[in-house]
Amino acid sequence: MARIVMKFGGTSVADLDRIRNVAARVKREVDAGNEVAVVVSAMSGTTNQLVAWVNGISKFFDEREYDAVVASGEQVTAGLTALALQQIGIKARSWLGWQIPIITDETHSKARIQRIPTEALEAGFKKGEVAVIAGFQGVTEDGRITTLGRGGSDTSAVALAAAVSAERCDIYTDVDGVYTTDPRIVTRARKLDRITYEEMFELASLGAKVLQPRSVEMAMKHRVRVQVLSSFDAPPDSTQILPGTLVVDEDEILEQHLVSGIAYSRDEAKITLLKVADRPGVAASIFGPLANAAINVDMIVQNVAPDGKSTDLTFTLSRTDLERALKVLDEAKGEIQYEQIIPDAAVAKVSVIGVGMRSHAGVALTMFETLAAKGINIGVISTSEIKVSVLIAEEYTELALRALHSAFGLDAAV
Amino acid sequence: MARIVMKFGGTSVADLDRIRNVAARVKREVDAGNEVAVVVSAMSGTTNQLVAWVNGISKFFDEREYDAVVASGEQVTAGLTALALQQIGIKARSWLGWQIPIITDETHSKARIQRIPTEALEAGFKKGEVAVIAGFQGVTEDGRITTLGRGGSDTSAVALAAAVSAERCDIYTDVDGVYTTDPRIVTRARKLDRITYEEMFELASLGAKVLQPRSVEMAMKHRVRVQVLSSFDAPPDSTQILPGTLVVDEDEILEQHLVSGIAYSRDEAKITLLKVADRPGVAASIFGPLANAAINVDMIVQNVAPDGKSTDLTFTLSRTDLERALKVLDEAKGEIQYEQIIPDAAVAKVSVIGVGMRSHAGVALTMFETLAAKGINIGVISTSEIKVSVLIAEEYTELALRALHSAFGLDAAV
Repeated sequence: MARIVMKFGGTSVADLDRIRNVAARVKREVDAGNEVAVVVSAMSGTTNQLVAWVNGISKFFDEREYDAVVASGEQVTAGLTALALQQIGIKARSWLGWQIPIITDETHSKARIQRIPTEALEAGFKKGEVAVIAGFQGVTEDGRITTLGRGGSDTSAVALAAAVSAERCDIYTDVDGVYTTDPRIVTRARKLDRITYEEMFELASLGAKVLQPRSVEMAMKHRVRVQVLSSFDAPPDSTQILPGTLVVDEDEILEQHLVSGIAYSRDEAKITLLKVADRPGVAASIFGPLANAAINVDMIVQNVAPDGKSTDLTFTLSRTDLERALKVLDEAKGEIQYEQIIPDAAVAKVSVIGVGMRSHAGVALTMFETLAAKGINIGVISTSEIKVSVLIAEEYTELALRALHSAFGLDAAV
Repeated sequence: MARIVMKFGGTSVADLDRIRNVAARVKREVDAGNEVAVVVSAMSGTTNQLVAWVNGISKFFDEREYDAVVASGEQVTAGLTALALQQIGIKARSWLGWQIPIITDETHSKARIQRIPTEALEAGFKKGEVAVIAGFQGVTEDGRITTLGRGGSDTSAVALAAAVSAERCDIYTDVDGVYTTDPRIVTRARKLDRITYEEMFELASLGAKVLQPRSVEMAMKHRVRVQVLSSFDAPPDSTQILPGTLVVDEDEILEQHLVSGIAYSRDEAKITLLKVADRPGVAASIFGPLANAAINVDMIVQNVAPDGKSTDLTFTLSRTDLERALKVLDEAKGEIQYEQIIPDAAVAKVSVIGVGMRSHAGVALTMFETLAAKGINIGVISTSEIKVSVLIAEEYTELALRALHSAFGLDAAV
């Protein structure tokens, strides 16, 4: 007998038929003798509708009320999933964030889980009852509802798995695992059997939508074995579970590849400031106002301008922040003293990721040569121990992905 | 300065524009110096959708999960209404049933409120904050969400008004008050300025949909002054509030009418059992099985059959229960021993109501004569101290209402 947490995303609970499918999958685990906690997201589309209502009614909204409104979506699916389980003879009850309680800090709309008392859940397990937990939500010490940010149900699931010492946290989604890159773009992308926490964290942070980065961080910290798998692959009553991708410790992976995956993000924009006076404190004069406006800057490059007295500075940021950033920089122009500002929203970030890079130099070089051979210019570069990211013109995204996927030997055999 | 509770039903919060309208009406009361608690229903249609999902996923559902699902609708409107108030400069916060808490018994899906601690709400009033309370919901002592049954937000509002000793409980709805009868049928129906608790309770119980009967019962018990008025009559920012109908104690009404209103209900069915053996215990053999199947019987008439040895028995019940009742009676036929069973779903109940009846005989007679003059047969009669109800063929409903409205002098001047 094992204890497992199963998490189902919005597309997996999108309607009653799919909720029944979820129940059948849970039943399979219960019938196999497991203790099961289920974490559910809102029906797909619901959260967007709720967010749209909040934005429609209030310009600068109180995030405590935002949380009260948007948390309702998971409440509905938790109740319906518990009912679907009861309907097929499985003892089950729903748990909302405040009922367990999942205690978070007070950073409404992107709260962090602080602790999860497990007495109530343990009592349920003893009764042979499946706990169906509303994902994405928690509660502050003083009883206000919080939410954990987009994709927060992944974090709920991993945190619960850590709290109840689950053997595994299965994240059911609409793809059957983690791929070497987006298979909609690179047809020869391969599903990975295993991936390390570190790589998964980078993949998720750099554009792969399969898991919320914070959930991976938490899994890594608490050594929760996470499995990404599909809700839609096999018939739900099939006893044969198709394996997904296991996210595990590095030492559980025998054969390390140099590069494990290639991520991309189109949610990027670039701003170049030409001829900024090259003096101490200039970076602060630029990035201070942006930080005050809660605009995150990602990659930064600074070049000395030809005249030797000024500098050209390029940085990237989220595309949704571009307009606001231009406004902030325009207002701070007097202090920063730049000659020209050049925004570019038609850029993409492509990243190669692999723990194998630690011991093998040359990944960055291979990446640059591969892109150069296809005539793709690199705008900005950023590296860390296990990844290299480059900014390119957006229109080259697919070409770059395919070329890199081949160059790093990731293509599936035809 | 007064303290008031304002309740807005589903059509009053049906979309963002209407929620803004609600906020404007609340602002008017706050600007007038009042302490305000607002109770909101779910957006119209939402509860039906949630109930349909529950019915779709589970045949004999766990009502604790039903409650968790359907309570989400009011959570959304409470948050949105608080935001709409903040947006126009009014301090406000949402309160869910479990946050106050509104403690109920464990009769899920039709729970009864047991107590409402007011410390949190009082603290909010002191801060000048409007409390926006999710109607229809409560919580059990052990932390499960409950709901109060259809129309339960009326009960939430009255219970809160009693708990915080509000001067008035304003029930905003899509009509501008309580009418002598349904104005869609009788064009000369008049809006009542005042009505007694007892009359309002009978009207609500006998078919008028303007208030939930239980809320009237509670208002009567705690002497809460209830006002029924429209969310849609005047522009929300108008300082002139159109008066609705006040539901008050009998001694607050100076001029008593013999009859105050005429209610009708098409949610009726009739069952006649012919030639039931006339022996002791026969009623129990009929109504016992129905009670066990949770089918409520309303009016009952028993006649001695021509042969003197058997009896004919007619009773009425809710139309939605008719099919089930026939099945139950068929199964119990051996024990009851009746010759024939005649169901009739095409019936309506028409009731005249007035506290004036207590001191004036002859209301029933006037009613029977009026209906007879129009050629309307009376099936079953039931009376109480302040009402007379008759069952008639459904097709005569409008004719009966108009005739009675005139006969009891209720017609508005033309």
